[in-house]
Amino acid sequence: MRHTDLDILIFGGTLLTMSEQMNIIENCLIGIKDGVIVSIQTKNNQAPSYESAKEIIDASSCVVMPGLINTHTHLPMVAFRGKADDLPLIDWLNNNIFPLEARFVNKNMVYECAMLAIAEMILSGTTTFCDAYFFESSIAEAAQFCSMRAVAAQGFADFATPDNPKYEKMMAAANRFVNRWKPYAPMITPAFFCHSPYTCSPATLVNVKQAAREADILYLTHLLEQRDEIEIIEQRYGKKPVRHLYDLGVLDEKTVAVHCNWLTKEDMEILADTGVGVSHNPESSMKLAAGVAPVAEMLERKINVGLGTDGAASNNDLDMFREMDSAAKIHKVMSLNPTAMSAQTVLQAATIGGAKLLGLEKLIGSIEVGKRADIILIDMNQPHLTPVYNYYSHMVYAARGADVKTSIINGKIVMKERKLLTIDLPKTMYAVNQIAKQVAAR
Amino acid sequence: MRHTDLDILIFGGTLLTMSEQMNIIENCLIGIKDGVIVSIQTKNNQAPSYESAKEIIDASSCVVMPGLINTHTHLPMVAFRGKADDLPLIDWLNNNIFPLEARFVNKNMVYECAMLAIAEMILSGTTTFCDAYFFESSIAEAAQFCSMRAVAAQGFADFATPDNPKYEKMMAAANRFVNRWKPYAPMITPAFFCHSPYTCSPATLVNVKQAAREADILYLTHLLEQRDEIEIIEQRYGKKPVRHLYDLGVLDEKTVAVHCNWLTKEDMEILADTGVGVSHNPESSMKLAAGVAPVAEMLERKINVGLGTDGAASNNDLDMFREMDSAAKIHKVMSLNPTAMSAQTVLQAATIGGAKLLGLEKLIGSIEVGKRADIILIDMNQPHLTPVYNYYSHMVYAARGADVKTSIINGKIVMKERKLLTIDLPKTMYAVNQIAKQVAAR
Repeated sequence: MRHTDLDILIFGGTLLTMSEQMNIIENCLIGIKDGVIVSIQTKNNQAPSYESAKEIIDASSCVVMPGLINTHTHLPMVAFRGKADDLPLIDWLNNNIFPLEARFVNKNMVYECAMLAIAEMILSGTTTFCDAYFFESSIAEAAQFCSMRAVAAQGFADFATPDNPKYEKMMAAANRFVNRWKPYAPMITPAFFCHSPYTCSPATLVNVKQAAREADILYLTHLLEQRDEIEIIEQRYGKKPVRHLYDLGVLDEKTVAVHCNWLTKEDMEILADTGVGVSHNPESSMKLAAGVAPVAEMLERKINVGLGTDGAASNNDLDMFREMDSAAKIHKVMSLNPTAMSAQTVLQAATIGGAKLLGLEKLIGSIEVGKRADIILIDMNQPHLTPVYNYYSHMVYAARGADVKTSIINGKIVMKERKLLTIDLPKTMYAVNQIAKQVAAR
Repeated sequence: MRHTDLDILIFGGTLLTMSEQMNIIENCLIGIKDGVIVSIQTKNNQAPSYESAKEIIDASSCVVMPGLINTHTHLPMVAFRGKADDLPLIDWLNNNIFPLEARFVNKNMVYECAMLAIAEMILSGTTTFCDAYFFESSIAEAAQFCSMRAVAAQGFADFATPDNPKYEKMMAAANRFVNRWKPYAPMITPAFFCHSPYTCSPATLVNVKQAAREADILYLTHLLEQRDEIEIIEQRYGKKPVRHLYDLGVLDEKTVAVHCNWLTKEDMEILADTGVGVSHNPESSMKLAAGVAPVAEMLERKINVGLGTDGAASNNDLDMFREMDSAAKIHKVMSLNPTAMSAQTVLQAATIGGAKLLGLEKLIGSIEVGKRADIILIDMNQPHLTPVYNYYSHMVYAARGADVKTSIINGKIVMKERKLLTIDLPKTMYAVNQIAKQVAAR
């Protein structure tokens, strides 16, 4: 292929491919055409006529790597960022989050807040998110509008939700949601999300999994975020939560368990055997004092682990760079083992690990010829990233979301030199601030 | 005072005073003259003729607050940032850090690396640091050159150090260091630093404390960073480390113990009774898998606690915003108590708490009339800081070093709109990169 055929050519910089071989290519040259990575070379090898590609991006002094994949979040909760912190969990949920959601969550709120959240995510290097909330179609619409890649999971619980005032209608609405997005929108992957084993009856858990299997989509659930969940499920069903889900037959390779802070060794064996993957959200679980997932032990058992931020009401940001830093550190201090969760392991979880978790590893998660072009450039020419001995170390322990200079999703430049190109940021911030005024006046 | 007499007038924005009363002033108006805060008002109260102050700073859409105080670091270790991570401690120290320091630490290296570290600190909102290293005069010189406020602590250990090849000469050199800085440089506060109870003999610990008392300066030591230290000291002296220091008579209100990850309740009583303060460095201790200091219990006992980053070889950044976030979260998850270490408590530790720890609370740590003008402006007009319900929450859980827009130290603007005004950053980065080339080639 001649470079004149390219849509985008990225030249210079250090490419962290995050491929199986973990190749690092200095002075890289990446060709993008129709959203796909069509060539990866070292600039020194030849002198290509890259001047004639449609768009040329100078990545000198940059790290070039796959966009980060946030495997669990609730985007609209940015509306409640900092509204209620440092509270006992029951107080936080019952007197703050649940009443706020009941009163303020609607279609418009979800769309506007998702837009703000996507702005924050793009500005901090995320190119794919997996969201679980109400009015999930509005989140998919916002993602599509911004050219963001998304797994959008429609939520289920055994009570009426803001988007489905009648429980009976949830399944029909969910099927309409899948049919709306699945065949027509390659950037949007619909999924189902059962809130948890303690808010969903066995019937709901089984029926939703059955529908997910029929639609061939991902099935997500919160699992063992808090320790209390063990006792609640044992009292109700006479067994531990993971065994409960296993006996219901809902655990398989298309099931993602979120949090998993209180897994026993037996639980981990079950997850490993059934192929269930785990979304690890360390910062949210630290802030809520929920616990720390035994990630190193999961990885030993070859359980797929992706990273996520959770919602902004319990983090309170959506910055995957901070999440990586915390993930690398919390497991070291919990195990008093400084070799636990190396920087490279964490960066894998935030890229190719997340892609595998979401079933998107053939499309994204690494920079390889044939994959979709979800690529970020990190500006290394900064004091806190000087000097450089190890790129993985810097990405995890020293780089910040604000260091992401340029971001490409599916071959489209969505941020260039810190400027968002697909979002009207002042308009979006104004809209969310208007919602927040009502929230504050509650 | 008429505003025409002012050197700087800051107007607009939300002032977090961090005073005893924790006043928050909306639409603030702060007058600065000769390095001192001379007036604090609300803009609405009157229509002052601020157009005629020498320098006018528009703080609209900003949080205005005291600069952050980094109470423990080893600045020149930026040279080894990311050189050796995720290793067992003994391997990290004996095969990496100690040999690197023995080979590469010299006067010039300390000066250049301190300059880079100061650039990173100013860019992330720190206005005062307390450093402990070799060639401490070079660090003080760098701080003075950049108009940064510093406590510079000359290091002692029972072996020859790079700056004092003969152990016998250390005390004389240290006294020269104090005499050089104490009377002449109001921005530089000299101090002494005994590396630890396990690297300093009782004689060294006592003699250095005696000299510190004579010079009326601060005395710092690493204490109980690693759990092993308990056994080492018990084997050597038949008592636990804190009791050992107490019996030597080196604990008083001018002693700062750094880390304190393994304090017992009895240890905390001793620190509280003697007035010893503690520098808490959560991220470094997480990354080194050293432990987590019982900070909530220290604060209950009215022990003064400041925050610090430690050196960049074990963090790997000098960003106090990240440190605050981690400090607020790690104690919650360790105690499984989401009310532990509120955002406000953490922000106090990073400002006025740090000032008290360093004996500088009459000068800095809060924004009050009569105090020195060490002030930072945080740009709140950003998606990850939208909306706002609680400023303390946002400063700790959502704001980042890169959000600091403007920084004033002792009434001098050292950074404006993210541009450093007292440091030649390209020159400094070049100098450190040249040193790093030699380190990498080792």
